[in-house]
Amino acid sequence: MQNQLLFTPLGGIGDVTKNMYLYEYKDQVLIVDCGLGFADETMLGVDLLLPDISYLAKAKKKIIGLLLTHGHEDHIGALPFVYPQLLALNNNQPIPMFGTAFTAALANEKLKEYGVGHQIKTVPFDGNEVVLGNFRASFIRVTHSVPDTSHILIKTPVGNIYHGSDFKFDDTPFDGKVSDYAKISQVGKEGVMCLMSDCLGSERPGCTGSENKLSESFEKEIKICQGKFIVTTYSSNIARINQVAQVSERYGRHIIFIGRSLIRTKEVAQRLGYLRIRPNLEVELDQIKNYSDNKLTLIVAGSQGQENSGMARIANGEHREIKLASNDTVIFSADPIPGNEVIVNELIDTIAKRGTRVVYSAISRNFHVSGHGSLEELGQLIKLVQPNNIIPIGGNFRHMAAYRDYAQSLGYRKNNIFLLEDGQEVVFSETDAKLGKIIPVKNVYVDEISGEELEGFILRDRQKLSEGGIVIILCEIDSGTGQLVEKPEIIVRGFIDSDSRRLANRLFQELKNALSKKRGRVTNWIYIRNLVSEVSERRIYKDLRRRPLVLPVVIEV
Amino acid sequence: MQNQLLFTPLGGIGDVTKNMYLYEYKDQVLIVDCGLGFADETMLGVDLLLPDISYLAKAKKKIIGLLLTHGHEDHIGALPFVYPQLLALNNNQPIPMFGTAFTAALANEKLKEYGVGHQIKTVPFDGNEVVLGNFRASFIRVTHSVPDTSHILIKTPVGNIYHGSDFKFDDTPFDGKVSDYAKISQVGKEGVMCLMSDCLGSERPGCTGSENKLSESFEKEIKICQGKFIVTTYSSNIARINQVAQVSERYGRHIIFIGRSLIRTKEVAQRLGYLRIRPNLEVELDQIKNYSDNKLTLIVAGSQGQENSGMARIANGEHREIKLASNDTVIFSADPIPGNEVIVNELIDTIAKRGTRVVYSAISRNFHVSGHGSLEELGQLIKLVQPNNIIPIGGNFRHMAAYRDYAQSLGYRKNNIFLLEDGQEVVFSETDAKLGKIIPVKNVYVDEISGEELEGFILRDRQKLSEGGIVIILCEIDSGTGQLVEKPEIIVRGFIDSDSRRLANRLFQELKNALSKKRGRVTNWIYIRNLVSEVSERRIYKDLRRRPLVLPVVIEV
Repeated sequence: MQNQLLFTPLGGIGDVTKNMYLYEYKDQVLIVDCGLGFADETMLGVDLLLPDISYLAKAKKKIIGLLLTHGHEDHIGALPFVYPQLLALNNNQPIPMFGTAFTAALANEKLKEYGVGHQIKTVPFDGNEVVLGNFRASFIRVTHSVPDTSHILIKTPVGNIYHGSDFKFDDTPFDGKVSDYAKISQVGKEGVMCLMSDCLGSERPGCTGSENKLSESFEKEIKICQGKFIVTTYSSNIARINQVAQVSERYGRHIIFIGRSLIRTKEVAQRLGYLRIRPNLEVELDQIKNYSDNKLTLIVAGSQGQENSGMARIANGEHREIKLASNDTVIFSADPIPGNEVIVNELIDTIAKRGTRVVYSAISRNFHVSGHGSLEELGQLIKLVQPNNIIPIGGNFRHMAAYRDYAQSLGYRKNNIFLLEDGQEVVFSETDAKLGKIIPVKNVYVDEISGEELEGFILRDRQKLSEGGIVIILCEIDSGTGQLVEKPEIIVRGFIDSDSRRLANRLFQELKNALSKKRGRVTNWIYIRNLVSEVSERRIYKDLRRRPLVLPVVIEV
Repeated sequence: MQNQLLFTPLGGIGDVTKNMYLYEYKDQVLIVDCGLGFADETMLGVDLLLPDISYLAKAKKKIIGLLLTHGHEDHIGALPFVYPQLLALNNNQPIPMFGTAFTAALANEKLKEYGVGHQIKTVPFDGNEVVLGNFRASFIRVTHSVPDTSHILIKTPVGNIYHGSDFKFDDTPFDGKVSDYAKISQVGKEGVMCLMSDCLGSERPGCTGSENKLSESFEKEIKICQGKFIVTTYSSNIARINQVAQVSERYGRHIIFIGRSLIRTKEVAQRLGYLRIRPNLEVELDQIKNYSDNKLTLIVAGSQGQENSGMARIANGEHREIKLASNDTVIFSADPIPGNEVIVNELIDTIAKRGTRVVYSAISRNFHVSGHGSLEELGQLIKLVQPNNIIPIGGNFRHMAAYRDYAQSLGYRKNNIFLLEDGQEVVFSETDAKLGKIIPVKNVYVDEISGEELEGFILRDRQKLSEGGIVIILCEIDSGTGQLVEKPEIIVRGFIDSDSRRLANRLFQELKNALSKKRGRVTNWIYIRNLVSEVSERRIYKDLRRRPLVLPVVIEV
């Protein structure tokens, strides 16, 4: 058999998230990234997805290492669930895992939280190679919306791979750490068999623009804000948080962080020295009463409209310590991720109804900039790397198609650009590249319980789903009062439902209590549905010690 | 009691759609518009909403007329369902209804289709007044994305109202018919008590831009298209269709229209002389085989990703006569309406996977322009009308808030600008305006059966929902093959389910048949869910002669 390298995306192609890529050489497998996916509205009762690793169970190869490109959930978030499975497949031989400082720190927090007794080793950006079986990997600094993002050069016996996941080329990043063009260019000169490239920005011509320019916008708004200055953004965007902190300090405002996962990420960034807030500038939430509104900046989780996030609770008037005032300003420093538009717009409407000034992407483009390069940046990477073949990753099919069009305009031939689906293998030999077998890849579900952004969920894969059964809760709710019209009906399938009448009675009480706190005309049915779901899941778990799929069916009356 | 005019929005405030506004003077009610609303993803099993007219049933006033501003579904679409109810409330005294030529023609088509034996009278833009009880109304031409759009000046004994619903100020519209600035300005000089104004574009600074400039973009694309030139847009955008037809004629392409409601609207436009296609240029679908691909332009319904629309069927390879070729070009000449992003993106991905060139808003802004004015146009209307009070309509709360900010920057005081919710009455006297009572307004549902865009649905309001009961269909579907794993489970509530086992057997057969036509890895779960829903609804109706709420629960295995 020829000297072959196999490349297979288990996730990250066609649906952007749950990134996980396999590089196989003989009996060795090197894994890059291990991310979460996010459920869409067709996946009722399910919130999160994992990459499907059943191929690895069948292939029975040795997993010689796992590399992480950067610290976003869709690249590291599945690790606590998947690593224990990988370990079992590897005969409990620990798998060496590597990432750059911030990536490793975030991933290690997660592993610790879930009680996984293994750690990611930190790799500096010093050009040294990590040797893993027949693979040699080196991490190359690029800019993105989270610190220490890297591309990875993977040298294999068959040829060199440039794994260029999420990036942009920002020459004035807030932390001053620009992409390592010299290294990328050197890699290109040594010859690259294939470039795997981020393609999410391929619909946009030109360049994406620098994170740095947002400071001015924050300054403009904070200057005229008479009340609390409230900013919601992604937890991992440390540059953004630094900018808000800096501007706040200049205008004599103290900073409070709200949101459990945001605080955890912030603490990691502070520990590594990536987030610098003057001592005493930061204030704990329980001290809020000691400060007047115009001396406060709140940095709040929930920019995607997540229910139970800090931002949603504040907007709905449900946050114990924080009430919105009409002279406050709320800034959405994030675009809605496709699919979240409706829920984000509802959140904005809810805030606007309280008379509070809200600034968001549709009325100002000055408070968010994408972390993904646009066409010119994608083209610049191609020109530096000069690969023989290209595989766009991390995009939907339309992004890959737009990327291919652009690569062709740079002189690449169509048959050197591979548009894949998850599970589609590419076989590299020393002389060519071609499509290989197709590995069946399914959706594996995880369910979110706590509601705190993406924290505190429990693994519940397909098997558990079928073991756990299904509970359908039919609630008739009066749209004028937001209250239950009568006792909810409970439909149980997949396990013995002898207790379902008692359960229905208890649920009736608990739902009545929960809903009575939100009496009044219903404007947000998504919120009601989620409330019913959450209360029901907790009750069912307490009573039955099981976690079935809970489907709330809310009927407006 | 003082001389009072009451204004109440029954719909159209806070959720953009199902526009319906009441003007009451003593015992007389004048209605403006009667539109459909569109369900969001939280309203499982429901597709369309009607304005709730239960207040009119209670108020027992005389409905002295109904005026229509323009021919969009969210302004006229509820008429076939609501008019018969209004008639009954009015002791079967016919209610005079008026609209401009295109609006009346579209609405009359609808009324005829549903067997409603009443018609809208056509009003020309000649400045003459329609006298309806104590009200006198005149129609003023404005530009928008459907021909013959009007604003309405309503003279009442209390003062003049300028009802300024959906519009933009396009000074080079494709049909050459510009807004009647002279009339608007004259109205302003006579004094206006209140301006009701479109506010949907209030998030955008500047002007929206003219429809006219799109012709160039179409020309650029048609010039390089080697195969079929396929354009999908809104049925009612006759200017857009005229542009595509004109460019197609210039490049020697014949035109085929695809989509039942699109064809109906097109025929209305042709009858009125608003759509001019050279004889023999238009071709029937069954003649398609006589023309080579590069001699064809297809104008296709389904720009919002609607399942079973022409565009979805073509993209999914399910259209009998039309197969996508890799040298075809598909142009989305419409932005996704908020909430439709995910389904439109899936449609685009499906087309891109076939190797066909797709042009859509994220990669080119040159194929669609909004029908709603941006801030400068909204400001221009205020300056021309010079109202004492302003009520933004037809927007979400955030749009109203942005509109109010802008109106304040023009010198209006906050307490002369009313931000309402549906059902919130405003009481005008000769000297002032203030908030009045709140009318309870609920959601009234309509269910879509045929799937052909917004045609062929059946009224199913709340009462029927509770009468009809609910059927939950649990299907386990193999994500690798798209086929049923076992017999679906049927859960019935709200009616006697003695037949549910027989129903389950029949459904099993029919679903198997339907799914077997789409064997292969499932990429579009929304499509599967809708297919299950459609097949089940038909079967249930055939077997049980009832239309319960059907909830397909598709479990991926």
